[in-house]
Amino acid sequence: MATKWAQKTVVLPAHKRGCHLVTSHIMKDLEKDLASFKCGLAHFFLQHTSASLTINENYDSDVLRDVETFLNKTVPEGRGAPWKHTIEGPDDMPAHIKSSMFGCSLTIPITDGHLDLGTWQGIWLCEHRDKGGSRKILVTLSGIAFFSMVLVSNRIGMKLIATCCYYIECLVGSKHCKVLPLFTLIF
Amino acid sequence: MATKWAQKTVVLPAHKRGCHLVTSHIMKDLEKDLASFKCGLAHFFLQHTSASLTINENYDSDVLRDVETFLNKTVPEGRGAPWKHTIEGPDDMPAHIKSSMFGCSLTIPITDGHLDLGTWQGIWLCEHRDKGGSRKILVTLSGIAFFSMVLVSNRIGMKLIATCCYYIECLVGSKHCKVLPLFTLIF
Amino acid sequence: MATKWAQKTVVLPAHKRGCHLVTSHIMKDLEKDLASFKCGLAHFFLQHTSASLTINENYDSDVLRDVETFLNKTVPEGRGAPWKHTIEGPDDMPAHIKSSMFGCSLTIPITDGHLDLGTWQGIWLCEHRDKGGSRKILVTLSGIAFFSMVLVSNRIGMKLIATCCYYIECLVGSKHCKVLPLFTLIF
Repeated sequence: MATKWAQKTVVLPAHKRGCHLVTSHIMKDLEKDLASFKCGLAHFFLQHTSASLTINENYDSDVLRDVETFLNKTVPEGRGAPWKHTIEGPDDMPAHIKSSMFGCSLTIPITDGHLDLGTWQGIWLCEHRDKGGSRKILVTLSGIAFFSMVLVSNRIGMKLIATCCYYIECLVGSKHCKVLPLFTLIF
Repeated sequence: MATKWAQKTVVLPAHKRGCHLVTSHIMKDLEKDLASFKCGLAHFFLQHTSASLTINENYDSDVLRDVETFLNKTVPEGRGAPWKHTIEGPDDMPAHIKSSMFGCSLTIPITDGHLDLGTWQGIWLCEHRDKGGSRKILVTLSGIAFFSMVLVSNRIGMKLIATCCYYIECLVGSKHCKVLPLFTLIF
Repeated sequence: MATKWAQKTVVLPAHKRGCHLVTSHIMKDLEKDLASFKCGLAHFFLQHTSASLTINENYDSDVLRDVETFLNKTVPEGRGAPWKHTIEGPDDMPAHIKSSMFGCSLTIPITDGHLDLGTWQGIWLCEHRDKGGSRKILVTLSGIAFFSMVLVSNRIGMKLIATCCYYIECLVGSKHCKVLPLFTLIF
């Protein structure tokens, strides 16, 4: 099996304060990259400290609004709030707290070329600033690749690889991963 | 070293609302799979939006009850609760919020074939619904495998592999991983 | 490309209760290990249940204090607190709850030998006990390594590897990773 790593940045445009379902935006940017992974993990890392990523319901938009209601209720803002860090505006310190509550990263399994989310799961961007601007997510994909292409112009070379693979397969074993035909197996 | 990926679903039976220590259930399902990893990561992904996974104390069951008390105290439910999403019952919207508070996934290091948890750490399933039913966890294991088996029926082939490995080892270096005998090394 | 895994423990000395920026301490311990990864993930696993790791602001120390204020305000402690688990002191049960709120692990992307944090992001240790003592973080690094060293004393062997690599490269493809010169490519 071929181990594969890939890394790219997905930029989300500015969203207003609140929770937003961004699965389809992210998928559009990653579709081709994910397609080559048979099994793996997709890691999403939001490079900011005043927004967060979470996984939650993908159907009823009232859930998005209710989670925002909860966050605002739980973290005081403005007059009467006990924060010392106020220099960047009344919404800034609450935004930092909410960012640590939900976290800035997600890891989602990849199966057969797609994110293996549950039926009702979606990826949410929670924008905690009044005007947060666009947000960068550094995505790291890792896993085993589908066999994609064989260029064989040289029969002897192919035999050499096939022989190598046979021995490597013997040495490594392959209990967990489905066994591909011998000559397509690459460590 | 042989890179290895494996993926399987662990199904937890229905648990009543509250926090539950599920380390031993999960370990029973994964024991054999973990055993072949010398070093790696185990990723647990709960495919639901109204329950969560967390790591916490594995000894005193009062800690499980106190965390449930905290969650119920922090997220209002029923009469007076400000939620719009109430169609699936009074416990549903609070369950979604709690799921994002604790998160639906865990990543735990693997060392020498076992999950490398601290002495007092255990895996908790937090069931936030009154009747959540069974819950699916998609587990993805990745890392480097122990050398397991050598089948050598052909001395020349073995020499070929040994030679390859020597050069590959030279190219790759192996500062961090303990060096296995040359002829057992597989990239 | 050479897949690489490494694992080591970083010990943080005792910190007083509160939030602490520990990026530079951790980087000092990992600098050399990270340097050999072209692309990958660094996983940090705190092996304790009464402290947490989070990513937040790395500049104004008031943010550290405000987050501690929030945690203490949100999780009741001492007289009037509803906890059953009090045997280890009044700060213990609140510490367990805070640990699950922020979580005990982080995954951060590695790019060109360094942690790819956003401009304002830092790694925080949140010590939730009054006297927590030193804390162990088990760090797992995985990814693809830079090509580091070539020892070639044997021209024929080198050709063999180069030929293997050519075929392997053909089989695997390398859309996402920058293509290194053929003879330095190791799967």
